[in-house]
Amino acid sequence: LPGIRVERVVEVTPVLKVAVLGAGYMGSAVTFPLSARGVQVNLWGTWLDDGIVEACGRGAHPKLKVPLPGGVALFRSGELEGALDGVDAVFVAVTSEGFCAVFGMALAAMKRNLPILTLTKGFTRFGGRVSRISGAAELIFRERFPSERLLWASIGGPVKAVELARAMPTSTVYGTLSSEVRDLAGTFATGCYRVFTSTDVTGVELSSAFKNVYAIALGICDGMYGTRFPELYHNLRAFVFTQAVKEMAIIAEKAGGRSETVNGLPGTGDLHVTASSGRNRRFGELIGAGRTGKEAYEHMAAEGETAEGYGALEHGADFARDLEIPVERELPLLSMLNGAVFGALPLEGEMGKFLENCGA
Amino acid sequence: LPGIRVERVVEVTPVLKVAVLGAGYMGSAVTFPLSARGVQVNLWGTWLDDGIVEACGRGAHPKLKVPLPGGVALFRSGELEGALDGVDAVFVAVTSEGFCAVFGMALAAMKRNLPILTLTKGFTRFGGRVSRISGAAELIFRERFPSERLLWASIGGPVKAVELARAMPTSTVYGTLSSEVRDLAGTFATGCYRVFTSTDVTGVELSSAFKNVYAIALGICDGMYGTRFPELYHNLRAFVFTQAVKEMAIIAEKAGGRSETVNGLPGTGDLHVTASSGRNRRFGELIGAGRTGKEAYEHMAAEGETAEGYGALEHGADFARDLEIPVERELPLLSMLNGAVFGALPLEGEMGKFLENCGA
Repeated sequence: LPGIRVERVVEVTPVLKVAVLGAGYMGSAVTFPLSARGVQVNLWGTWLDDGIVEACGRGAHPKLKVPLPGGVALFRSGELEGALDGVDAVFVAVTSEGFCAVFGMALAAMKRNLPILTLTKGFTRFGGRVSRISGAAELIFRERFPSERLLWASIGGPVKAVELARAMPTSTVYGTLSSEVRDLAGTFATGCYRVFTSTDVTGVELSSAFKNVYAIALGICDGMYGTRFPELYHNLRAFVFTQAVKEMAIIAEKAGGRSETVNGLPGTGDLHVTASSGRNRRFGELIGAGRTGKEAYEHMAAEGETAEGYGALEHGADFARDLEIPVERELPLLSMLNGAVFGALPLEGEMGKFLENCGA
Repeated sequence: LPGIRVERVVEVTPVLKVAVLGAGYMGSAVTFPLSARGVQVNLWGTWLDDGIVEACGRGAHPKLKVPLPGGVALFRSGELEGALDGVDAVFVAVTSEGFCAVFGMALAAMKRNLPILTLTKGFTRFGGRVSRISGAAELIFRERFPSERLLWASIGGPVKAVELARAMPTSTVYGTLSSEVRDLAGTFATGCYRVFTSTDVTGVELSSAFKNVYAIALGICDGMYGTRFPELYHNLRAFVFTQAVKEMAIIAEKAGGRSETVNGLPGTGDLHVTASSGRNRRFGELIGAGRTGKEAYEHMAAEGETAEGYGALEHGADFARDLEIPVERELPLLSMLNGAVFGALPLEGEMGKFLENCGA
């Protein structure tokens, strides 16, 4: 195994059983450290994942390109109830668009209140306004278990799924206010899956959502400069990266989170990974090379890939405005992104305006 | 010109004249925005730079690979007095090893107290202990101008010299407590040389010094994993990057600086550039691929390149200990670097120990 293992063997008794909802990149990848820790995993695929689940039964996971760990039990979209039978906790790893529907179905199928560990990143539209995933979850939960407390973790940090699935050294942060969930998170740690916990759920969740948005900006730099001036825009890229972290901290603090979370693994760390490689960076690159936001989105959809940052950008700007942050003045990079992805101004104009507005 | 220009034309009257001491990468690069702003520049090369100065007289700068701006006046090592004649401010851009000697010579040749803007990054050994560049400068200055105040800026931020010399968009931070120096810094700004100022001189200076140290750690990741597992260690790289920023913030705060400076352009931003490309990253890469610190340093020296981080690492650890920071416990990445560069433990052991100690 390629990762540097510093695992301390701690017996997990009694044997835990968890359901992972969503068989895309991240849901499937998290089954690796879980299985390594002896956790029994039920992996359930949504109605969009039936092809993936089928392929996993025959061989390698079609996105991760490696077979899932031997003990993972596979469940197709029609088998949610079976996947949730007798489990101790539920990971949710569907897209932000699918979150509310899947979470509602899962709650209906759950016989008791279970810890919910969510890998879903972004925003959702719920009850007519843009909401954090955790906010929508809270409302949906109350309908089902009106007198109980949601046991919740928002999971963040710099985790590329393909690397986690190959046991490369990885760090993650579980944001939770529940000591039960915190202890649970600790039992998932392996030598190459370093688990940190934070009580700043807001900071972890907003970092995870906005890093997808801001990674687009780094991709735009790559698209604008990468071909014409290779190796000659590190200064710009570093400026944009730093500005992104700064703006994420402004947003998180305004929402009640902590800037130190943004400056740590969930913000700086996850943006670093996302901006180096991945779908949101790629989406930005297509825009930087001349496509409109819509064209770039459709181009990737045709390849079977989704840039979460596209929806997160639209919702994220609304979210920032709902917090009464003057977006144009305090979040010039987010403004630039809005203009570049949805606007009519030529990209050079948006980038120039951004550079002029920054800290002026 | 490739950079996005958002320059606002502001007349600089009367015409300023500055001396730049040191004709290496950074000293030579800063002559570009200065010349663009109509500042008259005297570029002086140290005794190590005579070859560079000569080459610049004939054509391209041998390191930057482009000719210097037309108006730049060149001075050889024996002509320091001429270079300082009639100037309004002095940039110092020599290595940390050369700083004390050059600064002392310059002060002796200066007829009056001039603003000193330093691009030198790192530490120096002065009066028997490890000192920040600004600390040594203060002591040397007092000998020459006992009743005056040192007008000082420590310059930081994500600036690769070759990009600055090509007018690619660049941001920089002048750390100064002097309003005179702050105003001066503002007059150097162009559309592609964005100048920010900060009163946190300590934060800017320590970020600039330590990013060279921590960039070695990112290089070590590249050397250890880049060949065997290309594109499969983004998670580790992001973890190491974030840990580096965290440790720089601990050091800066303990020294009286501000973590927000470290989380901004001088720390996060400059580390981003330095860890993507450059000599300190390269130095780390050689170590990651199996060389000892000494071998890596000599290998680069044979190519005519110096990794500032090598000396800065040795001094930096002493500096942290002088601040009474428990290095092993609070700065596990710095400890790992010390072991990897100067120690006897195999690299895998150092990296494994680091991953285990981090946040445990």
